[in-house]
Amino acid sequence: MQVRAAVAHKAGAPLTIETVDLEGPRVGEVLVELKATGVCHTDAFTLSGDDPEGLFPAILGHEGAGVVVDVGPGVTTLKKGDHVIPLYTPECRHCEYCLNPKTNLCQAIRETQGRGLMPDGTSRFSIGGEKIHHYMGTSTFAQYTVAPEIALAKIREDAPFDKVCYIGCGVTTGIGAVVFTAKVEVGAKVVVFGLGGIGLNVIQGARLAGASMIVGVDLNPAKKAMAERFGMTHFVNPAEVEGDLVPYLVSLTKGGADYTFECIGNTKVMRQALECAHKGWGTSVIIGVAGAGQEISTRPFQLVTGRNWRGSAFGGARGRTDVPTIVDWYMDGKIEIDPMITHTMPLEDINRAFDLMHSGESIRSVVLY
Amino acid sequence: MQVRAAVAHKAGAPLTIETVDLEGPRVGEVLVELKATGVCHTDAFTLSGDDPEGLFPAILGHEGAGVVVDVGPGVTTLKKGDHVIPLYTPECRHCEYCLNPKTNLCQAIRETQGRGLMPDGTSRFSIGGEKIHHYMGTSTFAQYTVAPEIALAKIREDAPFDKVCYIGCGVTTGIGAVVFTAKVEVGAKVVVFGLGGIGLNVIQGARLAGASMIVGVDLNPAKKAMAERFGMTHFVNPAEVEGDLVPYLVSLTKGGADYTFECIGNTKVMRQALECAHKGWGTSVIIGVAGAGQEISTRPFQLVTGRNWRGSAFGGARGRTDVPTIVDWYMDGKIEIDPMITHTMPLEDINRAFDLMHSGESIRSVVLY
Repeated sequence: MQVRAAVAHKAGAPLTIETVDLEGPRVGEVLVELKATGVCHTDAFTLSGDDPEGLFPAILGHEGAGVVVDVGPGVTTLKKGDHVIPLYTPECRHCEYCLNPKTNLCQAIRETQGRGLMPDGTSRFSIGGEKIHHYMGTSTFAQYTVAPEIALAKIREDAPFDKVCYIGCGVTTGIGAVVFTAKVEVGAKVVVFGLGGIGLNVIQGARLAGASMIVGVDLNPAKKAMAERFGMTHFVNPAEVEGDLVPYLVSLTKGGADYTFECIGNTKVMRQALECAHKGWGTSVIIGVAGAGQEISTRPFQLVTGRNWRGSAFGGARGRTDVPTIVDWYMDGKIEIDPMITHTMPLEDINRAFDLMHSGESIRSVVLY
Repeated sequence: MQVRAAVAHKAGAPLTIETVDLEGPRVGEVLVELKATGVCHTDAFTLSGDDPEGLFPAILGHEGAGVVVDVGPGVTTLKKGDHVIPLYTPECRHCEYCLNPKTNLCQAIRETQGRGLMPDGTSRFSIGGEKIHHYMGTSTFAQYTVAPEIALAKIREDAPFDKVCYIGCGVTTGIGAVVFTAKVEVGAKVVVFGLGGIGLNVIQGARLAGASMIVGVDLNPAKKAMAERFGMTHFVNPAEVEGDLVPYLVSLTKGGADYTFECIGNTKVMRQALECAHKGWGTSVIIGVAGAGQEISTRPFQLVTGRNWRGSAFGGARGRTDVPTIVDWYMDGKIEIDPMITHTMPLEDINRAFDLMHSGESIRSVVLY
């Protein structure tokens, strides 16, 4: 079939809106009609050319929601008409990783997904016979996409696509880091570094978990109001702190935070996040993606005296299991998404979403099909 | 009273055996007659002058066992005749740290202990009126010592002092890191870097916990036989590995170790220990003490993909609670200590214990009073 899509032909160039060829689903695959997709920093990172694993030409996009329109042979858990969110972290429920309760990093299709291909090693997208790469196993910047059954979370049918698409990445990454990775307890003190979309979701995750103190740290004071809306109790602008930030935060939290989250991708901030965690038991979670080759460092004494340094990918969520639950949380009013979707646009205007992101005007832009 | 003691008058010089004055116990304090004390790398570190917090003159030693001979006012949990192990990590059971189940780092007397003093800010040791510092709150290189009640673990009376003194530091540090800090599960794969006394105790801790694969890594092949005796299943000499050590260990453990332990204090090895932990769930525990100012580093991707970096001090053990339990494990034959006590000597020969340590001849030397 022929579908409209935004194609990334090369690094650094805008996406072009084109009609591409899409093959139907093969064994274990599902054809999805996308209804909405968010535009995320990770798409911009790959498009910029800075992503060492970026492949071109490709159809980017990994934060979608849509409806199943066809299933390939062997598909048993999804049928035509089901509402779904594509998962860049699949959940096969059979691999060594899925069977280990300590991780969500299903490895079933990692190798082909990393090469921009479906699990059988081929692509479903092409233009004039020339192969177009899939991206993160999702390629949601197209009206229709094909994804493996194990990379689709079935969600309730009353959930609005234009909002819950954000659960496909940003919401789950932030809230999940709190709930699934760190397992923040009621009454905990939390510090969040970076109040972009991920940081806001960490904040509302901490509120959901019952944290008693939620400190947001950002150089931009314009972020304060929105962060407070999502549950931030204290705002710290490092530019306004006299002296070092770490002792300031340790003092503010009366000894250090129980949990800290780095949502920027800055290795220096990652160190600050670790070192303002409480001696004895503080856990610091890295969410942000650092530039290629950059390293974190600290004195080992920070760990020997009880701090715990870890990371979180896709919020530690098992996509098929946890994404439908997070959709329920949204529908039940436990979490908010609507105020974070600051802009919507048709596919034709998708490059504007990147402009809005780079200028800092948007929290999240969503393309409506 | 006058007691025989080994006094550290200045950095880099041998200890001198002298008669020193010891005041009796004040409020909340206990006078202990030591029956045995181990000589540990930490004593040597401080004596060398490399310890930035080292104070002189002092009576070193922190791995003792003895008998209560007198108690000061207000002491309620110990009485004359009780057998005890002094604790350089006390357990007051009242401070914020003791009341948090995630840590063992009681802070009740940290500040004075760090200044070589009893909790009231004075010393009990002197020579000719000149103050001698306490060390780690224990000062076991003396025939008698005074320690706070909260820094003494009461142990069973049938336990031999010349063996269980080692539980005052090395045994607990190694076994505790496995059992209390990492909480290694039955069937786990474990890699231990450094097969000195701590490494051997990590190995027997892993055996006690039911680990299925216990890999020991050391440049000295002479360490192999003893490590096997304590439960090591695989020996790796980095000097004999072609190519990088990390991928070799990942391959040997079929994907990485569930738990790794650094027992050397080498920041480069700490990085290797983290990076050979299993993607998704591997935990790496730093036990070794690095040189002043040295830093650990890695790519944040190592944590974002699920590895967990932490540290352990005194094995995560709560001294008054867990040390008597470890003594029971020894008496019940669950763990071994005897083969690790390779040398014994009277106090007069204590400098030989340091020589044996530096030459690598001993695993542990114990001074018998």
